[in-house]
Amino acid sequence: MSSSELLSRQNLTGLLDSVDTFIFDCDGVIWKGDNLIQGVSQTLDFLRSKGKNLVFVTNNSFKSRAQYAQKFQFLGISVSPDEIFSSSFAAAMYLKLNNFPPQNKVYVIGGDGILEELRLAGFTAFGGPEDSNKTVDLKQNIFFEHDKSVGAVVVGIDPNINYYKLQYGTLCVRENPGCLFIATNRDAVGHMTAWQEWPGAGCMVAAMCGSTQKEPIVVGKPSTFMMAFLLTKFNVSVSKMCMVGDRLDTDILFGQNAGCKTLLVLSGCTTQSALQDPSNNIHPDYYTNKISDMLDLLDT
Amino acid sequence: MSSSELLSRQNLTGLLDSVDTFIFDCDGVIWKGDNLIQGVSQTLDFLRSKGKNLVFVTNNSFKSRAQYAQKFQFLGISVSPDEIFSSSFAAAMYLKLNNFPPQNKVYVIGGDGILEELRLAGFTAFGGPEDSNKTVDLKQNIFFEHDKSVGAVVVGIDPNINYYKLQYGTLCVRENPGCLFIATNRDAVGHMTAWQEWPGAGCMVAAMCGSTQKEPIVVGKPSTFMMAFLLTKFNVSVSKMCMVGDRLDTDILFGQNAGCKTLLVLSGCTTQSALQDPSNNIHPDYYTNKISDMLDLLDT
Repeated sequence: MSSSELLSRQNLTGLLDSVDTFIFDCDGVIWKGDNLIQGVSQTLDFLRSKGKNLVFVTNNSFKSRAQYAQKFQFLGISVSPDEIFSSSFAAAMYLKLNNFPPQNKVYVIGGDGILEELRLAGFTAFGGPEDSNKTVDLKQNIFFEHDKSVGAVVVGIDPNINYYKLQYGTLCVRENPGCLFIATNRDAVGHMTAWQEWPGAGCMVAAMCGSTQKEPIVVGKPSTFMMAFLLTKFNVSVSKMCMVGDRLDTDILFGQNAGCKTLLVLSGCTTQSALQDPSNNIHPDYYTNKISDMLDLLDT
Repeated sequence: MSSSELLSRQNLTGLLDSVDTFIFDCDGVIWKGDNLIQGVSQTLDFLRSKGKNLVFVTNNSFKSRAQYAQKFQFLGISVSPDEIFSSSFAAAMYLKLNNFPPQNKVYVIGGDGILEELRLAGFTAFGGPEDSNKTVDLKQNIFFEHDKSVGAVVVGIDPNINYYKLQYGTLCVRENPGCLFIATNRDAVGHMTAWQEWPGAGCMVAAMCGSTQKEPIVVGKPSTFMMAFLLTKFNVSVSKMCMVGDRLDTDILFGQNAGCKTLLVLSGCTTQSALQDPSNNIHPDYYTNKISDMLDLLDT
């Protein structure tokens, strides 16, 4: 069993020397809900001043890249949409790179961000927020119609999940030949509010697995799809990348699956005792409380 | 690989001679949605005239036994509530037989029938339909309160599934020490209407598995809990029981797990080609189109 090193002045100096691209998870690393984590802004400024590329990767598919850029701006951090990789965007890129026929439609269980990214990529998408208030009256003689031209159902976190959406998605996956079932991610829970975790995309995706008895294609972390896309875009070597995240089973596994260096921060959902529990078998290279520890360790 | 015999005059005569109790699944065997399947009434009359015990077992937890007795009556069949075993009742009996402390509460994701059976068994239950119109405003500073005295979450089919219920159930299972997670059943889909299948309890149960990352205790078919209860109640030998159902992975497996004879009917969700597909490894003793084939085969 390998173990993880607590981040120190010495190993941090080595890390900064060997890495040119930092990939940050957002929730639990940059922010919690709508609150910036302490020292984040100064830490990002410092890394930029050292010439590092910064990439922000989020499994939360609720927003599009443009909507995330607005969130960064609202929190006082300047980030370009090009530096942001959300699982909503990954779903659209998966379809694009796999030559999804543009005449086929995409049904969405999830937020507006998925619809926005799919439409930006040239696809016809529907569902999502439009279906949030739809109800089903289970009269015996009703027949629930669905669009036979739907060729993919994309499922992400959906706080407006309902039976209408589940039936719509289930009928497409079960009855439309070859219909893809794509999960933006499978996070069990997420910080939808500042003080609590709430059911994440893993809940809605599992619901669809339960009714369709099929397993989805996952495009977000820890799947390597997004990393392969990043590597092509930035044209860098994985050995010069470091994944920084707060979750062992998504962020750290994602980095390790790709061959990156990995840094766990304890500012999100993983505690030090969970990291060091004998049942845990995912070990980041380094761990620290929060990303601004970098500044404290270097006395900047 | 064993194979199944098509029901014939000869093997039916042998079956009737050797069996004194028939256990019927309801949906797809007795009715489809709110429509009685052809010849059911006469078949049940015939079996009663032969002195057979009849038991009706349903995985659909939406109703209580009393509500199912009303449904039978509405369809023109006289059945006593004592002959009915629903998974809603099974959930209540599971708690009772396992000495669930009555001062603890039960949170329900599912229909009114679960609440009714739990209350009849002396438990304090809440949730279900009461929470169907509750919404969550994910403001950053809200805190979602849950009752710390909830000691079990029971999940069944819920056409009014929503994020409020999922968060409530998830918090109880994740945060209340020792809180049980009970599934009435895990059927992927069911005939909620006459012409179509809709997401079943397997969908809501999977959603809870996705957010809690725990597996439930299942009390309905194919778990043997209900059968053990039936055997005690009727004091009969399993070798003299025949399970009649339309689903391989719940009904037939349930009968086989218990050691009963098994009869598959093709009037519900299983087709002859699914039965005979090489990938199927669940083989009932007998199969036929519908239960009234018994009458035709015997020329009654």
